[in-house]
Amino acid sequence: MKPVKVGLLGLGTVGGGTHQVLMRNAEEINRRAGRRIEVVSAAVRHPERHVDVVLPLATDPFDLVRDPEIDIVVELIGGIEPARQLILEAIAQGKHVVTANKALVALHGNEIFAAAHQQGVMVAFEAAVAGGIPIIKALREGLAGNQIEWLAGIINGTSNFILTEMRDKGRDFADVLAEAQALGYAETDPTFDIEGIDAAHKLTILASIAFGIPLAFDKVYTEGIAHVSREDVQYAEEFGYRIKHLGIARRVAEGIELRVHPTLIPERRLIANVNGVMNAILVKGDAVGSTLYYGAGAGAEPTASAVVADLVDVVRTLTADPGNRVPHLAFQADHITDLPLLPIDQVVTAYYLHMQAEDRPGVMAEITGVLADQGISIEALIQKESAPGSTIVPVIMLTHRVREERLVRAVEQIEAMVAITGTVTRIRLERLNAD
Amino acid sequence: MKPVKVGLLGLGTVGGGTHQVLMRNAEEINRRAGRRIEVVSAAVRHPERHVDVVLPLATDPFDLVRDPEIDIVVELIGGIEPARQLILEAIAQGKHVVTANKALVALHGNEIFAAAHQQGVMVAFEAAVAGGIPIIKALREGLAGNQIEWLAGIINGTSNFILTEMRDKGRDFADVLAEAQALGYAETDPTFDIEGIDAAHKLTILASIAFGIPLAFDKVYTEGIAHVSREDVQYAEEFGYRIKHLGIARRVAEGIELRVHPTLIPERRLIANVNGVMNAILVKGDAVGSTLYYGAGAGAEPTASAVVADLVDVVRTLTADPGNRVPHLAFQADHITDLPLLPIDQVVTAYYLHMQAEDRPGVMAEITGVLADQGISIEALIQKESAPGSTIVPVIMLTHRVREERLVRAVEQIEAMVAITGTVTRIRLERLNAD
Repeated sequence: MKPVKVGLLGLGTVGGGTHQVLMRNAEEINRRAGRRIEVVSAAVRHPERHVDVVLPLATDPFDLVRDPEIDIVVELIGGIEPARQLILEAIAQGKHVVTANKALVALHGNEIFAAAHQQGVMVAFEAAVAGGIPIIKALREGLAGNQIEWLAGIINGTSNFILTEMRDKGRDFADVLAEAQALGYAETDPTFDIEGIDAAHKLTILASIAFGIPLAFDKVYTEGIAHVSREDVQYAEEFGYRIKHLGIARRVAEGIELRVHPTLIPERRLIANVNGVMNAILVKGDAVGSTLYYGAGAGAEPTASAVVADLVDVVRTLTADPGNRVPHLAFQADHITDLPLLPIDQVVTAYYLHMQAEDRPGVMAEITGVLADQGISIEALIQKESAPGSTIVPVIMLTHRVREERLVRAVEQIEAMVAITGTVTRIRLERLNAD
Repeated sequence: MKPVKVGLLGLGTVGGGTHQVLMRNAEEINRRAGRRIEVVSAAVRHPERHVDVVLPLATDPFDLVRDPEIDIVVELIGGIEPARQLILEAIAQGKHVVTANKALVALHGNEIFAAAHQQGVMVAFEAAVAGGIPIIKALREGLAGNQIEWLAGIINGTSNFILTEMRDKGRDFADVLAEAQALGYAETDPTFDIEGIDAAHKLTILASIAFGIPLAFDKVYTEGIAHVSREDVQYAEEFGYRIKHLGIARRVAEGIELRVHPTLIPERRLIANVNGVMNAILVKGDAVGSTLYYGAGAGAEPTASAVVADLVDVVRTLTADPGNRVPHLAFQADHITDLPLLPIDQVVTAYYLHMQAEDRPGVMAEITGVLADQGISIEALIQKESAPGSTIVPVIMLTHRVREERLVRAVEQIEAMVAITGTVTRIRLERLNAD
């Protein structure tokens, strides 16, 4: 089947990331979409800055949206104009559109969707809210059986980074903001982020999808975080609360509340523990109860992840028979591969070990010697006090990562030691960090 | 447009919940799907137990799957047979199928999907993994641009409840299990839950979708939680870890690791703080980084939420023009309603207040009097020490919920008091509990 042809408007952070992900994961994406997705050109303002990109570059974006070869236009230039005119022109040309432009969708979505509806083309915008978190899909499809009662989201990473630093390090707002700008987490003009405008754009979109109401950015109450002092953060802590900058949309008897402001939330809530630049959205549906969606809310590749998911959605809809739009197992039936599934003794992981040892000199050296022979290094070790009248002490340790067969051999040898009573408890340990 | 007709196999916990949600949210679902979803009959083993259900009941489920009036068969009886035969017969009859049956999908999904592919019908199974959390959709569609590197999930609520209780209350496994059975969180025969078989069924499905490999339940290494002692839970805590029962699927150079076992994870990870019967799945993609999906993994209505989402997916695919399969704003364009969006002074919420007050008798009475006049009650109050040589003290309080206009009036009056210096800091407080 012939490839679907994509034109990129913009090759900045997100545009470059999208091109990168489409190239790097081309095979995986093809296995899922059932058809190759090919970027055939990109429109950029300064072609001389992209000499390393192996792609035909256009300087007039209107040439790109009118190019008859292109099936899908991906708009990643941001801002209102010319993005709005470009998208409307692409729609008029019968092209499908994918955009990450939250401001544009929040302010002009009603107009754009009406035009798309008229032309029978798709306009997809997963990347417009919370970066790589598939929250649009979750609300629009995954929770389609629910009355949504409310949602509350940490949907601006810069504000969350600042509040997290204020709490962790007892620092002042202005101080942290300066650091965030230096680290590139905050723009040189941080108004959109810290005054809540960016969050209000995203909340507008989420609320519209949750409740089936028109997009109404101008009705969102918006308050930023500049007036939150480090004392407030600390006092909140004393009451058992964290301060987060939330976008909240709630259905009440009289209508819909739409508001962005700093908010105290109980520290035991999962969302209170979403720190740094990360985003999360908590959604309360009448049937499902509370669900939470967490991930990176910005950045080149997280945002590209959402853009590419939208591209795959469009391609699946264009291509597959309606009886099988999304493949059962995510990948097309003729692209399921039979990778080796490893037996547990070939797995590499860290371990928690708990054993009962005699409390006399030399025992610890013997245990650690067995571990060393198998190439197992110890990360932490605690030897407990023995019970009164007993010479047996619990020894607990954490190991570094090792292939399980080696650990099994070491444990067999330890259990055979005369100084060891009973069996060694082994529990695997995973750090689950994102690296 | 004429309604889509659904037949239910089973009216137990999930079947009853599905019928309930479809009736209660009929209008909302219709606004999203663009077409009414109508349950026309249900097959049950004991019709006499369902005399309160206003629905034609069949006793032979094969009659239902062969009923020419029915478009979609929803299988909620669980177990392998006759569920397998019923689904294959429904497919042979050209009907679409929605199922919540994790064991069946994990063990016989390859056969069922091949049959569905052949017949060009849909088989949807969002409810088979993690109840109401739309994790199948997230992996299959939302993260379609990623190479999935690994995923780790708390996907059995019973095991998580037991481990949470062991940690919170220092109780033994057997003790908590007995309580879980009394509360109905654990089955009378809890083998499937506590030995990890149920989690292995779900992991089989997740891994297949994440990596595009055939379903291979028999290759999953499976270990339960019965051997974890309360001492282990406590020792892990001393190292800064929590013990969770995880299903882990990881792509490594040699192939795929597939394993279910108790696991230590650092307590600062969000997933380490998923407690009680709740489920969560952490997914690491190469582009998006880490994303997490949290919610209720079982129960009548959370599972029904996923079943109904699948029904809406099927109906949208059957009905909509391919150019607009899922409506932009989740609800069909002619079903967007214009609900009132409330101004901020009409919002009802709790507040954190922080003010500088003179430290003399009567001031506190004056402040609380103003609040009482506006019907605002105080939940907590801290008066700090004054700085040396100063008579001004910080007063911090949390209020109960109140309409914002009342709070604004009270704050104006407090700021006008001679005993108050400067302005009152107000930060809204939301408990975000699921009630």
